[in-house]
Amino acid sequence: MADQYDIIVIGGGPGGYVAAIRAAQLGFKTAVVEREHLGGICLNWGCIPTKALLRSAEIYHYMEHAKDYGLSAEKIGFDAAAIVQRSRGVSGRLNMGVGGLLKKNKVDVIWGEATLTKPGEVVVAAPKKAAMQPQNPAPRGTLPAGTYAAKHIIVATGARPRVLPGIEPDGKLIWTYFEAMVPPTMPKSVLVMGSGAIGIEFASFYRTMGAEVTVVEVLPQILPVEDAEIAGLARKRFEKQGIKIITGAKVTKVAKGANSVTATIDDGKGTQDITAERMISAVGVVGNVENLGLEKLGVKMDRGTIVTDGLGRTNVPGLYAIGDVAGPPMLAHKAEHEGVICVETIKGLHTHAMDKLKIPGCTYCNPQIASVGLTEAKAKEAGYDIRVGRFPFLGNGKAIALGEPDGLVKTIFDKKTGQLLGAHMIGAEVTELIQGFVIAMNLETTEEELIHAVFPHPTLSEMMHESVMDAYGRAIHI
Amino acid sequence: MADQYDIIVIGGGPGGYVAAIRAAQLGFKTAVVEREHLGGICLNWGCIPTKALLRSAEIYHYMEHAKDYGLSAEKIGFDAAAIVQRSRGVSGRLNMGVGGLLKKNKVDVIWGEATLTKPGEVVVAAPKKAAMQPQNPAPRGTLPAGTYAAKHIIVATGARPRVLPGIEPDGKLIWTYFEAMVPPTMPKSVLVMGSGAIGIEFASFYRTMGAEVTVVEVLPQILPVEDAEIAGLARKRFEKQGIKIITGAKVTKVAKGANSVTATIDDGKGTQDITAERMISAVGVVGNVENLGLEKLGVKMDRGTIVTDGLGRTNVPGLYAIGDVAGPPMLAHKAEHEGVICVETIKGLHTHAMDKLKIPGCTYCNPQIASVGLTEAKAKEAGYDIRVGRFPFLGNGKAIALGEPDGLVKTIFDKKTGQLLGAHMIGAEVTELIQGFVIAMNLETTEEELIHAVFPHPTLSEMMHESVMDAYGRAIHI
Repeated sequence: MADQYDIIVIGGGPGGYVAAIRAAQLGFKTAVVEREHLGGICLNWGCIPTKALLRSAEIYHYMEHAKDYGLSAEKIGFDAAAIVQRSRGVSGRLNMGVGGLLKKNKVDVIWGEATLTKPGEVVVAAPKKAAMQPQNPAPRGTLPAGTYAAKHIIVATGARPRVLPGIEPDGKLIWTYFEAMVPPTMPKSVLVMGSGAIGIEFASFYRTMGAEVTVVEVLPQILPVEDAEIAGLARKRFEKQGIKIITGAKVTKVAKGANSVTATIDDGKGTQDITAERMISAVGVVGNVENLGLEKLGVKMDRGTIVTDGLGRTNVPGLYAIGDVAGPPMLAHKAEHEGVICVETIKGLHTHAMDKLKIPGCTYCNPQIASVGLTEAKAKEAGYDIRVGRFPFLGNGKAIALGEPDGLVKTIFDKKTGQLLGAHMIGAEVTELIQGFVIAMNLETTEEELIHAVFPHPTLSEMMHESVMDAYGRAIHI
Repeated sequence: MADQYDIIVIGGGPGGYVAAIRAAQLGFKTAVVEREHLGGICLNWGCIPTKALLRSAEIYHYMEHAKDYGLSAEKIGFDAAAIVQRSRGVSGRLNMGVGGLLKKNKVDVIWGEATLTKPGEVVVAAPKKAAMQPQNPAPRGTLPAGTYAAKHIIVATGARPRVLPGIEPDGKLIWTYFEAMVPPTMPKSVLVMGSGAIGIEFASFYRTMGAEVTVVEVLPQILPVEDAEIAGLARKRFEKQGIKIITGAKVTKVAKGANSVTATIDDGKGTQDITAERMISAVGVVGNVENLGLEKLGVKMDRGTIVTDGLGRTNVPGLYAIGDVAGPPMLAHKAEHEGVICVETIKGLHTHAMDKLKIPGCTYCNPQIASVGLTEAKAKEAGYDIRVGRFPFLGNGKAIALGEPDGLVKTIFDKKTGQLLGAHMIGAEVTELIQGFVIAMNLETTEEELIHAVFPHPTLSEMMHESVMDAYGRAIHI
C-alpha cells in the first residue's frame, strides 16, 4: 500500500497544528489526528482562555480603582457566568480558526485516538473522552477512525495535569485548570496548590475577583523557575493584594466537606489546616505518553517524555516527537518552533536545535512576569562573572502616567564579553516587552548595541534600555 | 577667569537634562540653564501628561464597554478637573524627579533665560515667561541669573507650537497643546487642525471623553509621516469612532463666537464652515532659536534649526546643539540620544551619528500607532525591491482574548539581502512592541534571525514574528 500521507501529526495542539501547516507549506501531504479539540490544551483550556479571564479581571480592577483616574461608577460588579462565557467564546472562535487554517492548507483532520502499531502506521480509534467542547462529536469534514499510513509520524500529544496521590482532583471541590477555567459561580475562597505559572495566574484571577486566596508551594520560592529577586518582588505584591502565600510547605492531607476542602499543610516546622471553598491543584503537567504504543516500538523515553535529538527525531526512524511530550520547557511557543524545526528537518532543510536558554517564559498575573535566559543564580552557577542591571518602574515616565509604578527590569550580562545572558521583568506589560530581549539574545547582542538602540519615549520599553545601561554604570533615570 | 564649568547645557528638557547627567557621569563639571520647568515640554506639556490623560480615557473606554468583559457598572462618569489634576500630578512628580536626578549627579541648575554673548560664555537673565508650573519662581538650590563660563556649551532649547497667521492661538477658544492639556471643563466639540501625533492624540482623547471631534489635515493623508496603509487603517478606525476627518483641506478663516470657533475649511473643491466649542492648533513645532545670540556668533542654521555634524557639533567651536533645536525628527528619544552622543564626543569617546532611519515614532491614540524605518512608499522611492509582510490582529490569540481584534503589523524587507527596512504597526500596545524591531534594525537583522526567534505565546508580539514570516510566504496563522 502506498503511503496515504507524507506526514501524520498526532495531536492538534499548538505544536501539532503548526507542524502540520508548515508541512503543507513545504509540499507534504499531511494529516493531523485529534481526539478532542483543535488547538489543544493551550487554546482550549490553557494559555488563551486564562488570558480572557485575566482580561476581565484586569478591567474589573481598573473599574474598582476608577477614582484614581478621575473616573467614577457605581454598583461595580461582575457576572461570573458572563466572564466564563466570554472566555469560552474566545477559545471557541480560535478553535474554529485552527480548523479553518488546516482546511486552507489542505491538511486532513482525522478524528479520534491514535495508536502506533508499527512504523509508518497510525491506527485511529473513535475518541473515548467525553465531549468538553461544542465541536465534539467530530467536526464536519474530518476523517473517521481507521488505519492510516504515513512516511513520517510526529507525536505531539501534549501533556495533562499532574496528580498527587491522595489529592486527586474530583472536578467538584478539587479542581485542575479544566474546572478552574469555568467556575459555575465565583468561589469565596480558593486554595491553590503549586505556584508555577498556572497556579499563580489562577491565584491572581480569583483574588482580583474578590476571593480569599492561599497559595501553597513546596519549594522555598514561588514561581520557582524565575529569578529569585523577581519572584521575591512578586510575592510582596501578591501579599499586598491579600494573597496568603505559604512556601516550603506541602499539602499532606485533604478532607472534603459539603462545599469546602480542608487541607493540612506541613511546612516542616508544624502543620496548619486551611479551609477553602475550592482547591486548585496546579502541581505541574506530565506528558501524554500512554496508550500510544510507544513501548512496543521501542521509543526511548526519559522521565516520562520522549527523547529526541533536538530536531524532533526519536530513536525510531520515521517517528518524531515535539512539544510537551518531548520534554520541557512545556510551553506552546517551544512546541510551535519544535514543530517547524521537525518538519523542516524531514524536508531536508538546514535546521538546528533550539537553544532552550533563548525561550522566554511569561506569567500573566498582576503584576505580569516575563523572562528569558539565565537567572542571576543560574548565571553564577554556570561560572559566569556577571554584571547585573536593574531599573525600577518607579523611574519610568510612562509607568507613572499609566498608574503602574511597581516593577523591575533586570538584565544579566557576561562581564567578560558583554553578552546578554538573561532578562527578568515584573510589572505592567512585561509579557509584551520581553520579545526585544529575545531578539537581542538571538542575535548574540552585547550591551553596546542595546545602548545604541533608540527606544521610543515615553514607553515602558525604555526601562529595558536603562536596565542595560545600569549594568554598565550609566543609567540616566536612577 | 577659569571656566566655572566644563559644560553648560541650555535647556532642561529630555535632551538637555540627559546630556547633563551623562556629562556628570563622564566627570564633567556641568550646569543646566532652565527658564521654566525641568523636563521641558515633553515631561511638563507633552509626551508625559498626554499619556496620563490618555490613560484616563483608556480606562473610561473600558468602563463604557464593561459588559463586553462580563462586568457591570452604573452611572459611569468622569470629573474633568480630576483627570487634569492627575495628569498635572504625574508631570509634577516627574519634574521633581528630574530635579532630584540632577542634584544626585551634582549638576548645577541655573534658573533663567540664557544668551550666548561670546564663545564660552552664557549670560543668564531672570526668567521672563509667566509661571506655568508650581516650581516657578526658581526652585530651591538653583543658581541665580548671572554670567557663567564653560568650555563647552550645548544648546538644547527645544521647540514650541507653530503658529499659522490668522489662526493664532488665544488660549481661550483656540488652543495649543498647553491649553488642550488642561481643559477647565470637557468641551462638547473640538476642531483639531493638524493630524500629526499631537493632533491625533488630542482628537482621540476628546473623542473618547464624548466630544464631537473634527480633524482637518492639509495633506491627503492623516498621520502624514506614517505608512499610507497604516494611516488608512487608522482613519477608518477613527471614523468608526465618530471622528470626522477632512484631508487635503486648509482652515482658511476663523471666526470667534462667545464660546465657539467657526472655521472655514477649503478642500480645493469648495468650502465648508465647521463650528466647535474649541479649536486645537496642532500644525507642528518650530525650534527655539530666537534671542539666544546665535546670529551674533555666526551659528549656521537651516530652516529654523541649528545645523550640526550629527555628533552635536555646530560650526562654532565649543558650541553644540541637540534635540528639537537641532532639527527633525523632533522627538524626545532622539534628543536624549543626541545629548549622550554630544557629550561623549566632547569627552573624546568613539561616537557615531544616529541613523535617523532607526528612530521609532509612536502615537498613543486609540488604536496606537508605532513605526520605525522606511514606509513601503519610501522604500520603493529609495529604489529597493521589497518584500512586504502583513499580519492582522484578528489572527492573534492574545488580541482576541484582550478584546482588541483590530490592527496590523507590517514589515518591509529588502528582497535582495533580507534586511529589515521598516516596521509599521497599528493596534493595542504597539508602542511597547516596536522596540523589538528597533533592536533588530540596530543589529541589521535579516528575516532569518527574526524567524528563528521564539516569541512568547500568547502575546501580541507573536504578530511581529508572523508578519516577518508572511513576507517570506510562511506565516502560520493567516
